[in-house]
Amino acid sequence: MTRRAMIIGTGLIGGSVGIALRDQGWHVSAVDHDPEVAKRAVDLGAADVIGQDPDAELTVVATPVGAIPGAVHRALEITQGVVTDVGSVKATVATAVTDGRFVPGHPMAGSEQDGIEGAVEGLFDGATWVLCPSQSTDDSAYAAVRAIVASLGAEIVALEPKRHDELVAVVSHVPHLTAATLMGVASDRSFEHRALLRLAAGGFRDMTRISAGRPDIWPDICAENRVAIVEVLDTLLAQLGQLRSTVVAGDRDGLLEVLERARIARRNLPVRAVHPGKLTEVQVPVFDRPGELRDITTLAAELDVNIYDFEITHSAEGRRGIVHVIVDTAVAERLQGGLMAQGYRPSLRALDAGEP
Amino acid sequence: MTRRAMIIGTGLIGGSVGIALRDQGWHVSAVDHDPEVAKRAVDLGAADVIGQDPDAELTVVATPVGAIPGAVHRALEITQGVVTDVGSVKATVATAVTDGRFVPGHPMAGSEQDGIEGAVEGLFDGATWVLCPSQSTDDSAYAAVRAIVASLGAEIVALEPKRHDELVAVVSHVPHLTAATLMGVASDRSFEHRALLRLAAGGFRDMTRISAGRPDIWPDICAENRVAIVEVLDTLLAQLGQLRSTVVAGDRDGLLEVLERARIARRNLPVRAVHPGKLTEVQVPVFDRPGELRDITTLAAELDVNIYDFEITHSAEGRRGIVHVIVDTAVAERLQGGLMAQGYRPSLRALDAGEP
Repeated sequence: MTRRAMIIGTGLIGGSVGIALRDQGWHVSAVDHDPEVAKRAVDLGAADVIGQDPDAELTVVATPVGAIPGAVHRALEITQGVVTDVGSVKATVATAVTDGRFVPGHPMAGSEQDGIEGAVEGLFDGATWVLCPSQSTDDSAYAAVRAIVASLGAEIVALEPKRHDELVAVVSHVPHLTAATLMGVASDRSFEHRALLRLAAGGFRDMTRISAGRPDIWPDICAENRVAIVEVLDTLLAQLGQLRSTVVAGDRDGLLEVLERARIARRNLPVRAVHPGKLTEVQVPVFDRPGELRDITTLAAELDVNIYDFEITHSAEGRRGIVHVIVDTAVAERLQGGLMAQGYRPSLRALDAGEP
Repeated sequence: MTRRAMIIGTGLIGGSVGIALRDQGWHVSAVDHDPEVAKRAVDLGAADVIGQDPDAELTVVATPVGAIPGAVHRALEITQGVVTDVGSVKATVATAVTDGRFVPGHPMAGSEQDGIEGAVEGLFDGATWVLCPSQSTDDSAYAAVRAIVASLGAEIVALEPKRHDELVAVVSHVPHLTAATLMGVASDRSFEHRALLRLAAGGFRDMTRISAGRPDIWPDICAENRVAIVEVLDTLLAQLGQLRSTVVAGDRDGLLEVLERARIARRNLPVRAVHPGKLTEVQVPVFDRPGELRDITTLAAELDVNIYDFEITHSAEGRRGIVHVIVDTAVAERLQGGLMAQGYRPSLRALDAGEP
């Protein structure tokens, strides 16, 4: 049986999901409020057909942030399958949609390219894809979406919706606003000093690249994640102001300290995850109550423990089960400790290289 | 006759200059305060020999900014040739060294790699290389350095030293400080939220890449270019503060306006210069007084007119001459107008494609 998916909103991310799913043999139908865009998605190989698919086992909502809750609700009405979205803000949609079949998500991938024309193969290969199962998300829906996303080559990080929003304010939203502001400052001065932009070398190009992206997604993002964005902006403003004082004072040591810390942090920025040589299986006995899977994987993410695979096995009577989580051996004890602190009784089992 | 050059300070830039000159057939000698580094430069093909070369027709000083004036003075004593430097700040060194054979310079190239190990072939190919002939720089020295730098594949922009410093504060110094601050904010929070840095996607990586560079060059740069850096930081802080207010107010149109302006500016950021199809020769009659060449090329840069080639021809009696400047036909009249406003009497001559 061919697996069937529906993509609602075939821009860069939706289109790239379509391409990736079709690579895996899925049948993909495409919906976009602009029929020309949906047609283009088919032409570019991001979908098989245009239109809704009541038989879709997976619907991916990739519309602008403000339109997501409505599109998710419609998908839940039309289909019996699981529904996920790819929006950059998660708390609002996690609150707005309380159906157990909905799994909020956010792939941390993209580019400054726009729309369906920017959709590419392999966009998610090795990328981080955040899933934010809410209090109402069913474990089975979460496990289903998680398995599909993993099949696209993404590394999954489970986070609470609110925590996700705080973190992306730091690594995505405020950097974007800062890039645009820097570009604006340079652009203002280039009216007076025409040679200025010819001096822009690689560093400036790198720093401002994301400001070439489409602006129209940002009013929704800034509205929905305003509190976290403003808080991070305040921190950035305060620290930039401190650095200004350091420069004014000619405080060489203070300047070196700031730059050295940044250098170390940048050099330690994790590269795309690679599978480690040694894996350990963490076995966690659980009651079959809703959200066990969410709680365990979210805790793992908080502890920066990457989960390579997981499985739930159920006991015969069905009320008890074991969650099997595969992690890097080097961090298995960290996860074990965290789980014990939460009242679980996990045990560890080393796997041979090559497993699972 | 093999042309001879001396590189003082064989880090990333000095080493890359050595590689590029040797590619052109030059004999290169390398001096570094660390003998191991000079030896490594020879090993990596960035120099032929270690040591000073009294016969060098060109000396390139590529030491940290604070050490440049001393190294330039020594090179001027040792050799009879022209001397240039590659420091990121130009007004102080242009004031400190008043010898006619010194041509302050600044290639807008580099990477976050450190030292001689980061030296690469082709670093300057298509890069912008600023030359800042001062009031005391001889036209002949300027023309000589300009021709050599052009032979390395760089596009030359002539700027007054002070103007250079104002512009690099915008496109280099403040962006660097901002990248380090952003990285610091993210790093601070990652102690509390271990998952944070795993969410850092391409945009954040691009924005913070330069903060991985060596910190020790920055105290000198910030000290020597403090006034311009603080002024640009103040502008950035003010505009980021305004953007914060826009977000707080939920002003969608205001936000879109800022982002749309940045997007347009970023998309119009000039790519590496390419030779145009049609060239025009601007002929400028001049008296043979010092600085004519500097004044004409600096004016061209202020008008954002790229000079592809130039030549000075002298009249028989030697007191008058003609500066021939080759520019894109599309901007030839702009340069003509600017020159006329300065009292010159330029004439234009269209060149066939393929010339010069």
